[in-house]
Amino acid sequence: MDDLLARLRAGLPGEALITDPDVTASYAHDMASFCEAGTPAVVVLPRSVEQVQHVMRTATALRVPVVPQGARTGLSGAANASDGCIVLSLVKMDRILEINPVDRIAVVEPGVVNATLSRAVGEHGLFYPPDPSSWETCTIGGNIGTASGGLCCVKYGVTAEYVLGLDVVLADGRLLTTGRRTAKGVAGYDLTRLFVGSEGSLGIVVRAVLALRPQPPRQLVLAAEFNSAAAACDAICRIMESGHTPSLLELMDRTTVRAVNTMANMGLPDTTEALLLAAFDTPDPGADLTAVGLLCEAAGATGVVPAEDTAESELLLHARRLALPALEAVKGTTMIDDVCVPRSRLGDLLEGIERIGEKYALTIGVCAHAGDGNTHPTVCFDAADPDESRRARESFDEIMALGLELGGTITGEHGVGVLKKDWLARELGPVGLELQRGIKRTFDPLGLLNPGKLF
Amino acid sequence: MDDLLARLRAGLPGEALITDPDVTASYAHDMASFCEAGTPAVVVLPRSVEQVQHVMRTATALRVPVVPQGARTGLSGAANASDGCIVLSLVKMDRILEINPVDRIAVVEPGVVNATLSRAVGEHGLFYPPDPSSWETCTIGGNIGTASGGLCCVKYGVTAEYVLGLDVVLADGRLLTTGRRTAKGVAGYDLTRLFVGSEGSLGIVVRAVLALRPQPPRQLVLAAEFNSAAAACDAICRIMESGHTPSLLELMDRTTVRAVNTMANMGLPDTTEALLLAAFDTPDPGADLTAVGLLCEAAGATGVVPAEDTAESELLLHARRLALPALEAVKGTTMIDDVCVPRSRLGDLLEGIERIGEKYALTIGVCAHAGDGNTHPTVCFDAADPDESRRARESFDEIMALGLELGGTITGEHGVGVLKKDWLARELGPVGLELQRGIKRTFDPLGLLNPGKLF
Repeated sequence: MDDLLARLRAGLPGEALITDPDVTASYAHDMASFCEAGTPAVVVLPRSVEQVQHVMRTATALRVPVVPQGARTGLSGAANASDGCIVLSLVKMDRILEINPVDRIAVVEPGVVNATLSRAVGEHGLFYPPDPSSWETCTIGGNIGTASGGLCCVKYGVTAEYVLGLDVVLADGRLLTTGRRTAKGVAGYDLTRLFVGSEGSLGIVVRAVLALRPQPPRQLVLAAEFNSAAAACDAICRIMESGHTPSLLELMDRTTVRAVNTMANMGLPDTTEALLLAAFDTPDPGADLTAVGLLCEAAGATGVVPAEDTAESELLLHARRLALPALEAVKGTTMIDDVCVPRSRLGDLLEGIERIGEKYALTIGVCAHAGDGNTHPTVCFDAADPDESRRARESFDEIMALGLELGGTITGEHGVGVLKKDWLARELGPVGLELQRGIKRTFDPLGLLNPGKLF
Repeated sequence: MDDLLARLRAGLPGEALITDPDVTASYAHDMASFCEAGTPAVVVLPRSVEQVQHVMRTATALRVPVVPQGARTGLSGAANASDGCIVLSLVKMDRILEINPVDRIAVVEPGVVNATLSRAVGEHGLFYPPDPSSWETCTIGGNIGTASGGLCCVKYGVTAEYVLGLDVVLADGRLLTTGRRTAKGVAGYDLTRLFVGSEGSLGIVVRAVLALRPQPPRQLVLAAEFNSAAAACDAICRIMESGHTPSLLELMDRTTVRAVNTMANMGLPDTTEALLLAAFDTPDPGADLTAVGLLCEAAGATGVVPAEDTAESELLLHARRLALPALEAVKGTTMIDDVCVPRSRLGDLLEGIERIGEKYALTIGVCAHAGDGNTHPTVCFDAADPDESRRARESFDEIMALGLELGGTITGEHGVGVLKKDWLARELGPVGLELQRGIKRTFDPLGLLNPGKLF
């Protein structure tokens, strides 16, 4: 331990090293519930690529595990410390190095906050689409590590679609450059994409070339009420089947709507069984909303209310963003799932989740990036009640099993981390798992990078 | 050899095996010039996953190399046979297994021809964007192997963006399923993307889940003439910087325009130094073309002609598609390069290519997916003239060096194959190359899959 600190100090300024146990403890875990977290030996906050290289060389020399961290807003425990590890926080590497409107790229360090980048490129008329709920605090490095999604994925895709190239410090401290600054490129295997979503288990991202788009017009939102979740899912299928490309297509079930009203008195329709939000950022969003409103009515919507302007639209989106905190307030603790199914099976999933809630006598609210088939069934429970906690965990597992049965995945956008590593093997199967482990060994033969995550 | 054939026969119907040397010779190479090609021991044409597994088990048992092939329309020699190999042609596995308009996916076998799929999904109001020039004959499996691009990439991206999941037969005959049928998913490392562009060196793709989009409106094309390539490149930068999203943005230089006129008497403006084609498939393409026309004029266009209708638009696209055959007719043989640079450097690249053509006293025509910065400098030469052939090869290499110097890549969409494998190391650097080789060993420890390609 003394040796570790002395070696780290040799290549890091004093303020980049935290050893006070009260402070290091605050770096122990991300925002996932129910995930083990150990006690770090030290937290380092490098400000340069060279400093990260020094940390990794030291870790390799002394065989000390390293847990990379961004803002720790993750929901699967992928950033949780392990005992005796070096926590490598990238939040001080937070410079936007370049914004290029002709090439439509930005070059950034990993600690740049998502919202900071979004606003900076916005000033050039550009758009960085990935918008996880935590966008005001989460970092681009964390977004890359977990391949984050968000509300706009149904039109614009996830983080993976926007990462063109990376600089990565490998476990042994060497620097790898992957990918490109160009719009296209097929020189060799796609290592860039391999790092996206790898949860810090293959290397430390220290620089990223990101693709940007032109800023679209402000979106206009429509709210549609349904007297059953099945009818709302039918509307979603009709919308997508008809060739519409909404910029957002979100679902909140009755439990979620009521929780949001309780928390924020938003005036959402308390009696509705399912509330659908659809948005368009097209040149004529009003016309698109009218067409989608008719499809909702054909599917049995009991009320269709298009927003009059962007202010009203923002209010509806604000209500949607409150869903998770509002559900957390129901019983004090939540387990947030992230099952994604083909959107044609969304109705079956929601029906199954309701059945599972009844079976375990639990409140499970569902908000969903419905256009993607990506749901966040959120189990509300009292963590002080052991039996309720056990039932919460069992219902959570049963929801994942159902997702796989319906042709889906255990995680649409939150990642595996600690929370779902037992389930990863089930989704991938033995052949897939063996190859994934082989890739891990190729990049990190000593197994020092974020051990105990993913597998 | 007898053992190989006997073992193959045990698991394949008679018609799936070709041993006649006159016929097997016709499977020796793809459409790249200047690439070595060996003599295959046998060509197999399986019709099922099980038959592919049988071939790979046999190859592994006898340590025989396997070269997978689609329609052999590739331009880098990636499908070229090696001596004594099994050529594994996937063209008989050509069924479209599913088209699902709600989930916006298609499930296909690898031998489906790109145009066949495009038309089939079109009947459901859907769109499979990747459109390489060879789209009427090339296969989806080949497109996946080379991560093919095409004309519409500037708006819709390349093949990689449309592959959600794969079934892959590994070198030892085991079946691996990667990815998903869902819009999103982050369960483990992205093996799907690793296979895209891997040129058959990691496994045999036997089934693919492809993402589809709604069919956009028919595109309308504008032609703009410039009296210098630099002015045309300036127009491209202005168009992209202004936030436009053309569905196509193509450049043909003077040499290319004249070659097309000579071949097909298309009536293109013979005196122009550079012809730019821009298209929009938006709800109001006329308005977009007007805006882009003004930007072209601001950049010095000497003539701007928007097509009146889709028929005129098709004629312009037809002229663009004739570019490569027309350049081939100039001197009998061509070497087609595929350098991609950041679009802000396109002018520097074109200027450099002109200089290189003068230095080597060669005709080098350039057509380019200019919106992507992806150029196809095409060296015209007489293959019977050894000195000219040497100069062609040297100029080809010099163009790639220039591309790298400008922050670009040696291959935007054609792949590495045999043609550019010496250059891959230069682009990737030693650390990148070592990791790529490590991945190859993880998937194919005996080195049986498409040996001698990529590295």
